[in-house]
Amino acid sequence: MDMWLSESQIKDAAMTYKVKETLVRRKTPFQDLAIVDTEAFGRMLLLDGIVQTTINDEYVYHEMITHIPLLTHPNPKKVLVVGGGDGGTIREILKHPSIEKAVLCEIDEIVIEECKKYLPEISCALTDPKCEIFIGDGIKYVHEHKNEFDVVIIDSTDPFGAAEGLFGGSFYKEIYECLTDDGIFVAQTETPFYLPEVVKKVYDDAKAVFPITKLFMAGIPTYPSGYWSFTLGSKKYDPEKANVIDKYDLDTKYYTKRLHSASFVLPKFIEDLTK
Amino acid sequence: MDMWLSESQIKDAAMTYKVKETLVRRKTPFQDLAIVDTEAFGRMLLLDGIVQTTINDEYVYHEMITHIPLLTHPNPKKVLVVGGGDGGTIREILKHPSIEKAVLCEIDEIVIEECKKYLPEISCALTDPKCEIFIGDGIKYVHEHKNEFDVVIIDSTDPFGAAEGLFGGSFYKEIYECLTDDGIFVAQTETPFYLPEVVKKVYDDAKAVFPITKLFMAGIPTYPSGYWSFTLGSKKYDPEKANVIDKYDLDTKYYTKRLHSASFVLPKFIEDLTK
Repeated sequence: MDMWLSESQIKDAAMTYKVKETLVRRKTPFQDLAIVDTEAFGRMLLLDGIVQTTINDEYVYHEMITHIPLLTHPNPKKVLVVGGGDGGTIREILKHPSIEKAVLCEIDEIVIEECKKYLPEISCALTDPKCEIFIGDGIKYVHEHKNEFDVVIIDSTDPFGAAEGLFGGSFYKEIYECLTDDGIFVAQTETPFYLPEVVKKVYDDAKAVFPITKLFMAGIPTYPSGYWSFTLGSKKYDPEKANVIDKYDLDTKYYTKRLHSASFVLPKFIEDLTK
Repeated sequence: MDMWLSESQIKDAAMTYKVKETLVRRKTPFQDLAIVDTEAFGRMLLLDGIVQTTINDEYVYHEMITHIPLLTHPNPKKVLVVGGGDGGTIREILKHPSIEKAVLCEIDEIVIEECKKYLPEISCALTDPKCEIFIGDGIKYVHEHKNEFDVVIIDSTDPFGAAEGLFGGSFYKEIYECLTDDGIFVAQTETPFYLPEVVKKVYDDAKAVFPITKLFMAGIPTYPSGYWSFTLGSKKYDPEKANVIDKYDLDTKYYTKRLHSASFVLPKFIEDLTK
């Protein structure tokens, strides 16, 4: 039997993946979780039928959402990840020697449980003593922690359903207060090819709160269009002017110190969304 | 009836597009040509089942393969395009005021004929008096024209079948001789995510011929992985050091003068292919 998984990426177009095996599929209180083993990308986590991460290309997303803010900040000690139950962002955060504590606030503990079981290459750092796991609502957690984190990373699903409240101005104000005086926030913010209005709204909402707000881009094969945006809001440090060259080296496959600032140089139609 | 087109992008993974209408499908002496109207990307040209260009995202490829070399060269007058029968590259070339002649050397005249009919937004400049169309083999044409072109653009299909001879060291030597003393060559060279060995071979082959050889990248939703490489070989001008900022402005949707040099800053695993 040939089994193919199909993921709608834009109305009337889809990516399909030949599946070797479905490792787990279960309804959680929040979503429909599946981990499947695909021929082309290895094991893959899906939530509500949307590809979240795959063994073969996860490094791009996790490196870029982490190292851009953590190397922009001169001395990040405490970092909060909202979402990110697969653990890939925590793994990248803990590569930074200054980190004292990395908090993972994930609403769905079954994501963590199944990723620990089936995606150990990604979830491996969740048992690190510097990682603190909090199961609960990210909006509530951020509200209850003021002036505490050097970096807050929103590693969420798409802005529909469970994660909807993680995109928008009122939440960004709470993040601003959750950050220390020179703190930095970053979020995954969809592809400007397919959802320019979402990219623009998130950018405008963040810009209304943070003195420095910028978009950066990365190539991610299993995400819609293959070209993904992240939005960064900063109280003090400009990520394009950060002196990353003199900082410690990291073991990476995608991020480089030269790419750090180059990833903020946007194609015209994306630059136009930030005007 | 729901009609879906499926394009294999990597072994065991495919993109599928809902089709409104098949506008033309015919066997040419060289390939299987189809132009279909899709819901998600508008009209789309396929050769041997591989997506070549679509109305909705063609601008990225055509702008980047053209404006990077033409703005690196201080005064390009004569440009040769090998392949590119859809006409999109010619359209972009003719935006440059210094151009006196743009030659299109396309082996398959049926591509030109059908693109003129069904993709006028892309093929519109093929009737421009500065455009000279030559139907025939690009390898032979390049061999017979020495020291003639300021820029040569290889706008080919993938390096299998008809276009195989357009990738490789012996052809790059011929291109070198076809160029003027300060000429520049550029080619589309696949995605390093799926075909790193092809990207590396093309780069190494070009580097053995050209004193300055560099890769640059662009995000293209309908090309495999969505993140595409181009290889540039130059006799004299370094594209990263070219003073493009002071040059004339172009009407573009993707290319910008800041993106010009930033597109050469590579993710680590791609940079490693150039070492």
